[in-house]
Formats: sequence, C-alpha cells, structure tokens
Amino acid sequence: MSGSNKIFVAVVGVGGVGKAFLGQLEHLRARMQRQNVLLELVLVRRSKKQYFDNFAPLDISQALQNLDNSGNAAPPFGETVDTLAKAPNKVILVDNTSDQEIAASYPKILSKGISIVTPNKKAFSDTYDLWSQIFASAANGTGGPKCGYVFHESTVGAGLPVISTLKELIETGDEVTKIEGVFSGTMSFLFNSFMPVGGGGGKFSAEVKKAKELGYTEPDPRDDLNGLDVARKLTILARIAGLKVQSPTSFPVESLIPKELESVSSGDEFLEKLPQFDDQMEELKLSAAKEGKVVRFVGSIDAPSQAVRVGLEKFDASHPIAALKGSDNIISFHTKRYGSNALIIQGAGAGGEVTAMGVTGDLLKVVRLLH
Amino acid sequence: MSGSNKIFVAVVGVGGVGKAFLGQLEHLRARMQRQNVLLELVLVRRSKKQYFDNFAPLDISQALQNLDNSGNAAPPFGETVDTLAKAPNKVILVDNTSDQEIAASYPKILSKGISIVTPNKKAFSDTYDLWSQIFASAANGTGGPKCGYVFHESTVGAGLPVISTLKELIETGDEVTKIEGVFSGTMSFLFNSFMPVGGGGGKFSAEVKKAKELGYTEPDPRDDLNGLDVARKLTILARIAGLKVQSPTSFPVESLIPKELESVSSGDEFLEKLPQFDDQMEELKLSAAKEGKVVRFVGSIDAPSQAVRVGLEKFDASHPIAALKGSDNIISFHTKRYGSNALIIQGAGAGGEVTAMGVTGDLLKVVRLLH
Repeated sequence: MSGSNKIFVAVVGVGGVGKAFLGQLEHLRARMQRQNVLLELVLVRRSKKQYFDNFAPLDISQALQNLDNSGNAAPPFGETVDTLAKAPNKVILVDNTSDQEIAASYPKILSKGISIVTPNKKAFSDTYDLWSQIFASAANGTGGPKCGYVFHESTVGAGLPVISTLKELIETGDEVTKIEGVFSGTMSFLFNSFMPVGGGGGKFSAEVKKAKELGYTEPDPRDDLNGLDVARKLTILARIAGLKVQSPTSFPVESLIPKELESVSSGDEFLEKLPQFDDQMEELKLSAAKEGKVVRFVGSIDAPSQAVRVGLEKFDASHPIAALKGSDNIISFHTKRYGSNALIIQGAGAGGEVTAMGVTGDLLKVVRLLH
Repeated sequence: MSGSNKIFVAVVGVGGVGKAFLGQLEHLRARMQRQNVLLELVLVRRSKKQYFDNFAPLDISQALQNLDNSGNAAPPFGETVDTLAKAPNKVILVDNTSDQEIAASYPKILSKGISIVTPNKKAFSDTYDLWSQIFASAANGTGGPKCGYVFHESTVGAGLPVISTLKELIETGDEVTKIEGVFSGTMSFLFNSFMPVGGGGGKFSAEVKKAKELGYTEPDPRDDLNGLDVARKLTILARIAGLKVQSPTSFPVESLIPKELESVSSGDEFLEKLPQFDDQMEELKLSAAKEGKVVRFVGSIDAPSQAVRVGLEKFDASHPIAALKGSDNIISFHTKRYGSNALIIQGAGAGGEVTAMGVTGDLLKVVRLLH
C-alpha cells in the first residue's frame, strides 16, 4: 500500500459522541482496508489528557483505556495542531467537543491542510465572521486545494441527512422558500408529552421534570428551554441557504424560561419553582385545543423575507410536525422544485450513535476526496 | 485553467428528465466555474440523433435545438462510447434514458474510465449478474482507480436522498432491519385518492382514469399497476442492503391488473373494462375501514428474513404511510441505531425537475471525486 492511501485520524473529545464515533471508526477502518485505504487513529485527546505516540497507529479498541492510563497532560490545543500539521500523511481532525476555543481555531487548522469533521455547533453558529473565515480556509470553500476539507452534518439533526440535502438543493439550482421543523430532541419530547395529538399530557413543569429524569435534557434544563440550541441550528441552516445571519441571537428566539426564574441559582431550584408558571402554559394549551391544534416548539426560516425565528407555534393535528413521536426531529424543506408538498426528513436527532453516524459519514466523504 | 480542471459531460436521452437536467447543468456549470472547474457539454443524443463536434464545447441552452436542427443520425451506441473513451479529458456520461441496451453496456463504459450518473433503473434492477459487473467495473466499486464512477440516486425516490442515506447507514456500521414505504408517485396518488384518511374517495377504476388524465400514469396504466416499477426500486435498495436479489420478479409482487385484463390489447380497452372489477377493491376498502385502517400500495424489505415484497397493505390512519399526500413517496429505514422510530424521508418521488436534481447531485459528486 502506498503512503498516499494512508490517512491519519485525530480525535478530540471522547464523551458520548466520541465513544460512539470510535466504535464506528473501527468498523469503517476494516471496511476501507478492503478498499485499499488505511485509516490510522494517531491521537486521542480530552480536555486534560492526550495520547499520542509520534504518529504510531493506536489500537482503536484500546484508545480510551490508553488515554486514561498512559495519556500525558494535554498540551495547549495550538501545539497539538502544529504537531498534526507536520504529519507525513493527510490528517482528519474529528472534533467531538462543543468547545468554543477549538471552534475558533478551525480557520487556522484548515489552512494548515488538516481536514475537520465535527458535530460542534459553536464553530458554525458563532459570528458570521468566523463562519466566513472557516469556509475561506477550506478546500470545499474558497480556500484552494492545499487547505483541509470541513464537514459538519451532525450540527443539525445529528445523523439525519439535513445539511447535505439542503446543500444539494441549492447547488443543483433549486430555490428554497422555507425551512421549518422541530430541531431539538428535548423540545420534541417535551411537547409531544405535554400536548399529544388526541388530548392528554401533564402539566408543563411535570413534563420538564420527567424529561430531565429520563436524561432528555441538559443537567440544567434551562439550557434547553432558552431556545439557544435550536437558534444555533437555525443559524447554520440559514447561512447555508444564503442568509447572512450574524449570530444565534440576532433574530427572535422565544425562551420558555419565565423571566422570574432566569436568575435562580440552580437547575434544581428552577425545577422546584417552575410549577408556579404552569398556568401560562395551560392557557396556551387550551387556546390551541379550541382551534383543534397542538403547540410545538419550532424553528423556521422564511427565505424571501429573510426572517428566522424560534419559538412556540400552533399546528393542525394532521400536520406532520404535530404527529411527531418521542424525541424525533423533523425538518421540512419547502422549495420551488418540490412545490406544494415539502421534502421532509424525520427521525432521531440526538443521541451518541446517531450523532456519531453523521460524523463518521462526513469522515468517509473526506477520505474519498483525499485519497 | 489547467486541463485537469476540465470535465466533459455527454448526455443521452433528452425527454422530460433530460431537458430538466440540461437546465440544471447550465446552473451548475456557472457555479463550478467560480470554483475553477470547467464542465463542458460535448455530446447530446436521443434515440435516432446525435450532436457531437469532436469535443468542442456545446452551448447548453442551444443544445436541444442544435440536436434537432443539426444533429446527425446516431451511430450505434457502442461507437459513441468508443469515441468518448478517446476524449482528452475525463468524461461523465449522463444516461437519462430507461434503455436496457445502454444499461447492459455500463460495465464496458465504466471500465473505459467513463463515469456514469443516471436515473435508469434497468441497469441496477436487471440480473444480479449485471449489478455485480457494474460495481466490479466502477472506481467506487471494486474496479480500481482507472475505472469510472457510477451513481444512481434518482433510481429510487427521484431526488430524495434515499440511496445515499441507505449507503451511509450501512457504511457507518448501522444494521438495517426493515425498509418500508410508498415508492411510486402513481400508486401514492391513486391510493391517497381512492381511500383518503377520514373517508371518501371514488371507485378504483375512476381514480385510475383520473390519474391518467392528470398525467400521473404511464400511457398504458397497466405499466404502473403491475407493480414492476416498485419491484425494480425494491430490488435496488435490497441489493444495497446486502441481499442478493436475483431480479425484480424473484420475490412476491402483487399486480393490480385483474387476470382477465392482462391481455386486452390496449390501455384504453383496459380502462373501459376496469370498472367491472371495482367490487373487489371496494370490498378491500370496506374491510380496512372496519379495522380503522386505510389501504396503501407499498414495498418492504425485511432484512433478517431476507424477505422482499410489493403489494397492498393496511395501515392505521395515524401511520405516516397513511398520512401521505398527493403523489409523494415516503421511505422509512428501521435500523438498530434509530431504534423504535424510523428514519423517514418523504416528498415528491417523480417528475422531471426532482428526478434531474438527483442526477445533477450525482454529477456533482463525480466532479468532486474527479478533479
């Protein structure tokens, strides 16, 4: 096998997604080897530790254990990047963190010829300036063939083919008029339980508590209820669709955190006091029910008016958004070509394995472009 | 611009899909030119005529007119392939026909280094032998780097990302347990009209007649009602999922053509006599309604039992397949990773523009791999 068929993989972040990714990498490595492409894991890193042996291939199945037992104190991230830039083979950096600092260094990493695949939303939903710099430094942007490639399918809808589909619609010349959907597994679960089609459902605060107990929310549920996660995803899609959205706070985002509870000191205290505000949500539920509708927490992009918004909306019981189940995401693309019925993609939009699938799929795209 | 950034495109078949494709090619050409890749249309061909000027670039907007006015009698297709194989640049053949003979020559074309993008189902749903030969001759199969690439997203669900999604699920190591859906725009329209959720709908023969009048069926509606189009799509998906399906007739396919009308001489005579068989369909409708269900014409692949089937099935009114609208397709992937809720893709699965979109998207994939 020639050296050019060997590609190095460096993994930063080994939490839920990172672990699932390593499992999928092991599978993909065996698969690609049969096609004469050798994927070698050469570095694993978490916030405080790094395992790297001068580009010697690491045993993927032992990588986490080795990181824990034999890893060194992690050097500053910039040093790791400089080391990777000296690799004798092409390098793909897999950023499974949600680290803002790493995100900010993407332009530098790409310009050194290192490719990036990642579910890290921060990089693509921060300032429009960072977004522009990233794609100005990427081989699949305007950075030229010496730059690295960057793919981020899992930043929206995890493994669902959302970003690739939107890109293809645009690249083949379709006109996207509206994108609408449920973009958060937490919000999906919460509203499918709070107001299922056909009636029922508990008080809002009780459903938030249940969602937290089932592991569907962040440790502090306010991090879901403030709508910022959805706003970040909408920012990314809007930018791909050609809108110059400055940041995830530069359009209306409805927070479900009562003003009075924004500054309580802990998530637990928040959950304790939330029942005092159930009446507001109950009223909303009743008014929707009177119209034969249900309430859902959605994001939407209206292309002609350049309007992006995130918040509560009412939907007819027969609408696909109303009929969503569990913690599924749903994304509808309304386009000129698809006419009156949207192109719809639906399924689990959160979880380690499906998020990692988007990352592994992106890795495969880069491998095919590199080798 | 260096010669290696120039890629030749040859188009065979300029009907509805071919015309839409040429429009999209014009858009894509302008887009790629900004990225320093020059896509040149060098040949257009329909069954009897060919327009080719020794690899001189053709004006895309005038290509059809020039084919009609200045085209020569088309040489045997094999000669055209031999000519294209001598091109000074890489060539992508866009086969917008449903021609069996062209399909049969794919292995030869690919082994000459010419890439193929196509919505032609025949090539991928004929014998398993042809399927194997195609991918044994392709750079994205086991044919090696001197062969051409082959992509066929539009053979199932037109522009919907069905094949790419299934491939990614498998390549990243997911286990597909079941694929199920409505794979025919005609059958979708027919059953959504014949038995809409909530009641209503006309006699079956009247709905067939209406579908024909609206242009939703083949000139002879029996070409839709025999189920073969759906069987071809299922054959393709099953093979991608790893099942060695020998042909689209090697598994149970339910035909909606009454035995007595199989051999009537014309589509018109068929439509005239079909009302005599409405009672059977009406009975089915009633029995489904009694169970609170609707009848739909679906295809399914059960991976563990290797069972493929095409035919009528009953679905609860709340099932996504029951709620389909217009002539939309819906495809559900049940996998280990996606758990109890499937990954669902839904939208228009027929029509010139959306079919061409799948072809143009594939062309873009090949361009990125080639340049």
